[in-house]
Amino acid sequence: MENVKQKIDKIKTQIEKYFTVQLPSTAISPVNTAKIEQVIDHTLLSPAATSKDIERVCDEAISYQFYSVCVPPRFVSLARKRLGASSIHVATVIGFPLGYNKSSIKRLETLKAIENGASEIDMVLPIGALISENWSVVRKDIQTVVEGASQVPVKVILETGFLTEEQIIAGCFISQLSKARFVKTSTGFGPRGASVTDIETMHHTIGGQLGIKASGGIKTIEDAQAMIQAGATRIGTSNSIIILQQYHEQRSKLH
Amino acid sequence: MENVKQKIDKIKTQIEKYFTVQLPSTAISPVNTAKIEQVIDHTLLSPAATSKDIERVCDEAISYQFYSVCVPPRFVSLARKRLGASSIHVATVIGFPLGYNKSSIKRLETLKAIENGASEIDMVLPIGALISENWSVVRKDIQTVVEGASQVPVKVILETGFLTEEQIIAGCFISQLSKARFVKTSTGFGPRGASVTDIETMHHTIGGQLGIKASGGIKTIEDAQAMIQAGATRIGTSNSIIILQQYHEQRSKLH
Repeated sequence: MENVKQKIDKIKTQIEKYFTVQLPSTAISPVNTAKIEQVIDHTLLSPAATSKDIERVCDEAISYQFYSVCVPPRFVSLARKRLGASSIHVATVIGFPLGYNKSSIKRLETLKAIENGASEIDMVLPIGALISENWSVVRKDIQTVVEGASQVPVKVILETGFLTEEQIIAGCFISQLSKARFVKTSTGFGPRGASVTDIETMHHTIGGQLGIKASGGIKTIEDAQAMIQAGATRIGTSNSIIILQQYHEQRSKLH
Repeated sequence: MENVKQKIDKIKTQIEKYFTVQLPSTAISPVNTAKIEQVIDHTLLSPAATSKDIERVCDEAISYQFYSVCVPPRFVSLARKRLGASSIHVATVIGFPLGYNKSSIKRLETLKAIENGASEIDMVLPIGALISENWSVVRKDIQTVVEGASQVPVKVILETGFLTEEQIIAGCFISQLSKARFVKTSTGFGPRGASVTDIETMHHTIGGQLGIKASGGIKTIEDAQAMIQAGATRIGTSNSIIILQQYHEQRSKLH
């Protein structure tokens, strides 16, 4: 633990020196995780998903009052239409899931998604650039999307399965510097999903200043609660309904 | 076999009726597969690839005289620069690997790639639309990219791992109708790679009229030769150098 904090301080100093900036330390409002459905992005990102599948996911989100649906760019307008006047957000994915599209294309994809009704943007950063410490490439890529998104919150997917602890820490700070609103662990298409260790690293690095979304392989209420306990403020999962049912079973046992 | 041909005829008739068109039957020039390196797209599409990795792949392509390098959109201009005046093509991937980006974004990504030096375009079609028989969506998506690509050949990735034989056949005919130049089996990120059966189905459907690219999981010269024997006219692989070495070992044993 002390070791992690030392690493974080060291990388913070490196990044401040590299960019000749001072990293901000603005606190965000704490997230109420008491209503678990309100921290869930109800997700369907399978390439085989059809319009009917997307409509079903939207109907489920209304029934269970999830925070958002997270759907492919092609289906954003369908989802927004299906959700109607409900307060449920439509999130979509940009440069997904490999992150190596041109920044200018990520920006155009973001503009189109917002025009079609997206109110949350989950982008993948350029993973190879983070690995090779081309930090200015990473920053410019995220900034390009954040500027395109304007008031719409951007979550930066790090794809932690490819990264060392140091690279996760650097990815968090660069996301913060680029005015992203969240960091997010995984795409669900990478080498592995979210781990509790990932979330702890993110929490120690930018907890209380950026949101933290755990995603990939979260299948049970125990998985979700372990992530939240470690510092996650949002959960991305396709297993939302099962998780919510398990949650209510838990509570009924307590009373 | 007779069964497959009957299926193909049936689906051909359905597609001609659906679009009220007649499918063309223009023959393409036969591909010379005697020099195996000249049917290989030397591929690096890992999200963790760095600039240095791309440069290495380009240098290898020059040394071994592969037909092309296939690299992420972000690295197209780097690859074109590294390959210099050599005749080796730069191929890149569009809407990759999930295919569910908006058609308008796929088109812009294509324009940018060609502007940056790409001379082959490997796009993923909207898989969910093919599965749900929204054939007009599939056709419009491919046409949008083909029109954007203009003279640059477009390969349509079907991601056969998600598809039935009927869906593969329909995907081939719709690609042909949309003036794509190749159909291609897999992204390398899907449920499975190319199979000999996939290639046979494609060959019976549009062989001699469109190119056929086998990709995903091709690791040995035996894999590559089985695909070519089944009708593949191009091979996409990251194992190109090993395959070429095995090829030369084969030949030296014969003499």
